[in-house]
Amino acid sequence: MAETESLSQFLDTAVDAAKKAGEIIRQGFYQTKHVEHKGEDILVKVDLVTETDKACEDLVFNHLKQHYPTHKFIGEETTAANGVTELTAEPTWIVDPLDGTTNFVHGFPFVCISIGLTIGKVPTVGVVYNPIMDELFTGIHGQGAFLNGKPIKVSSQSELVKSLLATEAGTKRDKSTVDATTNRINSLLFKVRSLRMSGSCALNLCGIASGRLDLFYETGYGGPWDVAAGAVIVREAGGVVYDPSGKDFDITSQRVAASNPLLKDLFVEALNQSE
Amino acid sequence: MAETESLSQFLDTAVDAAKKAGEIIRQGFYQTKHVEHKGEDILVKVDLVTETDKACEDLVFNHLKQHYPTHKFIGEETTAANGVTELTAEPTWIVDPLDGTTNFVHGFPFVCISIGLTIGKVPTVGVVYNPIMDELFTGIHGQGAFLNGKPIKVSSQSELVKSLLATEAGTKRDKSTVDATTNRINSLLFKVRSLRMSGSCALNLCGIASGRLDLFYETGYGGPWDVAAGAVIVREAGGVVYDPSGKDFDITSQRVAASNPLLKDLFVEALNQSE
Repeated sequence: MAETESLSQFLDTAVDAAKKAGEIIRQGFYQTKHVEHKGEDILVKVDLVTETDKACEDLVFNHLKQHYPTHKFIGEETTAANGVTELTAEPTWIVDPLDGTTNFVHGFPFVCISIGLTIGKVPTVGVVYNPIMDELFTGIHGQGAFLNGKPIKVSSQSELVKSLLATEAGTKRDKSTVDATTNRINSLLFKVRSLRMSGSCALNLCGIASGRLDLFYETGYGGPWDVAAGAVIVREAGGVVYDPSGKDFDITSQRVAASNPLLKDLFVEALNQSE
Repeated sequence: MAETESLSQFLDTAVDAAKKAGEIIRQGFYQTKHVEHKGEDILVKVDLVTETDKACEDLVFNHLKQHYPTHKFIGEETTAANGVTELTAEPTWIVDPLDGTTNFVHGFPFVCISIGLTIGKVPTVGVVYNPIMDELFTGIHGQGAFLNGKPIKVSSQSELVKSLLATEAGTKRDKSTVDATTNRINSLLFKVRSLRMSGSCALNLCGIASGRLDLFYETGYGGPWDVAAGAVIVREAGGVVYDPSGKDFDITSQRVAASNPLLKDLFVEALNQSE
């Protein structure tokens, strides 16, 4: 009971931090929308990404450290600056201050802040907040998943051919990566209903959790901050998170697949055939 | 002046119709969100697409016919039922009552109603309304383009490598179509920043018009109802609409590309190299 209470407190603290960071993201997102010379704006916006990323991560880390000074912290920005922090069994907050940076630069409304807490390396509390669409996805291990406070569930689709698939083109543009990406898409397009690419790994996981998407995989994304929060939310919505090979999900591996349980084996088979 | 006034009236009438139809779409979109057994819901939702499509088209056509009984009308639903109506120089309302039907079924928030008016076969008035995100895109020939009443402009990006590209996987799943689709994506991924697929042709055009996207192409989409409204909105936002080959845009051809003027030649060259 004490643990349940503290998990709820962790979530509340993370939601407060996400809402405050969301305000910074929202301001940056709309900052250059009505300026005349968009070409120069793009440059301004690229700087704005760095500034917004940094400001959000500082805000979130300061907020969480004030409440939980003994916890560990892993963030995209601090990792970029200081190198990889090893994930331990200690309570560890894993934060992506701005997921969907390309969307942020272009004003495409799929951006979010992602805050996950692992305990014993298990994703236990998750908050993903899209401040542009004002959608707050939350999950606590054993206590369900929610969108703006209302319970959410994965789809109960059981056929690939009726399933909506999401993935991303990633950022690597060497020939072998791009060929692998499009060969996989080619193979999967014969089996699923259609394909969406919206540019945010965390929001794709929330799409699975809320039943908007049936299938999602991505390899080569940035790091554990992209998936720590989403993984809790998917599982608490009745979904499964796994390695695209079908093996157990490893939060540090930069490989993820997610769906409802009915589609897992079919999806893994289709992914294996697409390699 | 008289013509300008009547174009504004045409737009106002179309906006009224779009808002009313949007209410029907919104109801259907959320209708099954909190029901327990989503598997059955998918079946219900597929019926709901047909019902919603039909109800919206009836509503929009009745509304427009009441005001403009002498105008011509082309709609996705009536075309499916009665065959292709030839586009003439007469004022012709071209309507997609529900663009993004796969998204509608899955609860993915990119759905819209698209209402375009051609005069002398030229797209002249355009309304695209996403009732889930409450985004109303409008354009009148010679009078600018707007999102919820505020002026919008295409991006002024001039480099492919910094451009955000949108396209769609379409609905055809024969080998030659799928191979052509993914070969083209493969070729373009080496040249652009990233790729988005969001499932609505009309909203992709509005993405170009509002600078959220820099490049869009699609071939093999449903018909002129997918592009009639969006074409006006893109052009009035300072953009260009053309055939992916670089030739003039033909609203009846099921082939479209759009961008700002700076990117057109580069995009056409990249599209030609990707064939």
